[in-house]
Amino acid sequence: MTDDFEAMWADLAPLGRSASTGGYFRQPWHAAEREARAWFAEQAAARGLRLVTDAVGNQVAWWDVPGGSSGRPGDAVLTGSHLDSVLDGGAFDGPLGVVSALAAVDRLRERGVAPTRPLGVSVFVEEEGSRFGLACLGSRLATGEVALEDALARRDRDGTSLEDALAAADLGGGSRDGQAVPGLLDLSGVGCFVELHVEQGRHLVDTDAAVGLASRIWPHGRYRFDVTGRADHAGATRMEDRHDPLLTFSMTALAANKQARLAGQRATFGRLDVAPNATNAIPSRVTGWLDARADSDEALAALVEAITAQAAARAERDGTALSVTPESVSQAVAFDADLTARLGRVGARTGTGAGSGGWPVLPSLAGHDAGILAAAGVPTAMMFVRNPTGVSHAPDERAETADCLTGVEALADVLAELVS
Amino acid sequence: MTDDFEAMWADLAPLGRSASTGGYFRQPWHAAEREARAWFAEQAAARGLRLVTDAVGNQVAWWDVPGGSSGRPGDAVLTGSHLDSVLDGGAFDGPLGVVSALAAVDRLRERGVAPTRPLGVSVFVEEEGSRFGLACLGSRLATGEVALEDALARRDRDGTSLEDALAAADLGGGSRDGQAVPGLLDLSGVGCFVELHVEQGRHLVDTDAAVGLASRIWPHGRYRFDVTGRADHAGATRMEDRHDPLLTFSMTALAANKQARLAGQRATFGRLDVAPNATNAIPSRVTGWLDARADSDEALAALVEAITAQAAARAERDGTALSVTPESVSQAVAFDADLTARLGRVGARTGTGAGSGGWPVLPSLAGHDAGILAAAGVPTAMMFVRNPTGVSHAPDERAETADCLTGVEALADVLAELVS
Repeated sequence: MTDDFEAMWADLAPLGRSASTGGYFRQPWHAAEREARAWFAEQAAARGLRLVTDAVGNQVAWWDVPGGSSGRPGDAVLTGSHLDSVLDGGAFDGPLGVVSALAAVDRLRERGVAPTRPLGVSVFVEEEGSRFGLACLGSRLATGEVALEDALARRDRDGTSLEDALAAADLGGGSRDGQAVPGLLDLSGVGCFVELHVEQGRHLVDTDAAVGLASRIWPHGRYRFDVTGRADHAGATRMEDRHDPLLTFSMTALAANKQARLAGQRATFGRLDVAPNATNAIPSRVTGWLDARADSDEALAALVEAITAQAAARAERDGTALSVTPESVSQAVAFDADLTARLGRVGARTGTGAGSGGWPVLPSLAGHDAGILAAAGVPTAMMFVRNPTGVSHAPDERAETADCLTGVEALADVLAELVS
Repeated sequence: MTDDFEAMWADLAPLGRSASTGGYFRQPWHAAEREARAWFAEQAAARGLRLVTDAVGNQVAWWDVPGGSSGRPGDAVLTGSHLDSVLDGGAFDGPLGVVSALAAVDRLRERGVAPTRPLGVSVFVEEEGSRFGLACLGSRLATGEVALEDALARRDRDGTSLEDALAAADLGGGSRDGQAVPGLLDLSGVGCFVELHVEQGRHLVDTDAAVGLASRIWPHGRYRFDVTGRADHAGATRMEDRHDPLLTFSMTALAANKQARLAGQRATFGRLDVAPNATNAIPSRVTGWLDARADSDEALAALVEAITAQAAARAERDGTALSVTPESVSQAVAFDADLTARLGRVGARTGTGAGSGGWPVLPSLAGHDAGILAAAGVPTAMMFVRNPTGVSHAPDERAETADCLTGVEALADVLAELVS
């Protein structure tokens, strides 16, 4: 059944891919991501799965239990990932989990597995937060962590509100989108969630394993650093008369890197906005977004505090004003220990693990919808597929086809266990 | 005649002004700048001046000599400035010279001056280079320093070529634009050029003078620093595995500031472009534009070399690649000594100078169309009007009305001398 996986992968490959970089631009509710959504609907229909699309575009393709016993609280098994990408992202982050879930359904049917519980393949929207600035927006809405009325007022970089973006996307308007529900996904029937994902590091390369399990997600947050100075002529203004916010920001970016290295944590400024952004004018304002992650909530707070202190000291020296706004902060998430142990036993039994020890267990330094569902009380586990470069969120993100197919087998083994 | 100046100023004030910042966005061939152009055409018509608009939108409103003796090489006197602005610029940089020139024409007529030489009021386009990246584009084209076919291929940030921008602007299509000439302005008849401009510093504040003269323009240049690294996940990538171009850029921005301070020169990064510019991705590329100015050509070269050396050293440490491209470099320009001395005598005679010593003489650290005409061999001088804050290229740019009116009188005195 290599063909099924590879055929699905080939279908998805061109959607939103940049000809110049080879990277993906699948921002939610824009054309490429809508095509990916339509592709998912076609896949569901081809398998006779019952597709549900909610008011923001979260989707679940349900393999209902014959006889109609589905719907008891905690009965259903959910697996899946997302189809959106960061700006110029890789092919695997998100889609690998969706394609693998569909391929795993095919495996179960080939094996003649008759589920006693409903099995859903899920696609949560705006997992990357690349358009409206809040990662895992779809799962945060579905779990009730974020209220819909608050989310609808969010605006993207072009000033479009989520409300207008949803109206323009015309979700569930076509018959091929299946059943459109007026509100948000109802997750009350979900007894467990398993997300398969490409690894975003080289742990599985180092342990020589194609597949691994996640223990936990590091706490992480996004913090907006606004530095305000005074616009002025780049030539005529004496160096000592300036209030240049780019100097404050530059020192802050270097300080973030240094503090993260010293503490063994992570800090990155990847997004910047400069005003007026003219060659011959000293900027009036520089805004940078800090992405910070650490191995404990306390370490994260200490890291951000250290960076903020260095930024504030430099702002005083530059005569600029600094304000720091946490835009989203996610506390540490531990995945369900019992569920993860149960998956581990499947790995040890089926022999797709490294050596005979089963699947390696590693922390995730990236956030995932699985973390949101876990925090909402859904027993949740994650499976990783080896990434030879360790690179992710970039065109170089990779997974070997052989490893992907091992991942599909492993996920099918896991689902066979969970739906029995 | 205070009324004329203030009425013209009030007409221009709302064009392209941002309601949120109070600054101006008059990018060439966009709507606000076209309105300013139409305003200039109306002013020319109201004064019976013969308006000429060339193929790129440079304009001259001619007060022809009665009897028709105009057109001899070197006969005409030209004065004026520009109407475009930097992004979020001030009200005075450019428009003050245009409005003062028109008001000076009114003064000459009130005084009954009968010119023996043609007097033109000029508006050169894209003086700031805010749209197509090359300052003084209009005067560079009119003097032949830049070839039209090269300029037409330039693209703005939205990817629009100058050729398409000009087609969309429909220059000279309306009768109120006066005489549209097929090529570029013919400056062969111009015997001298005087540009009045708001001061972009506090020299006249320090010397307690409303009006001053320019001795020379510092050499200056724009250099594009492209730093290429490797995009990667902001959380999952270990700090020691990164190739983060923002770190290289940040050190470069700090180095530029430090080197300029040490050398007593000027260096600024005011414009930045980050790719992919996503919060949770390490950037793949950062491009920054360095604006550097120095008091000699040698000092400018040494300054840029010192900044480049520090950037290259940091790039090696960060594992990034640096390339530095000079986009435009203007050598030092000395204004015409004889003409400037002649203007100085006018100032001493009429008494609008500081004390009894006439108008102070100061260098300009900003580039101007006057510098382009001077470099092309046109005898050129510049007059400055006091700026109480010294701020320019920003909404806070100011000149007191009383000083502006003194500037108009001074310019009228100068023109009366030159056209006699």
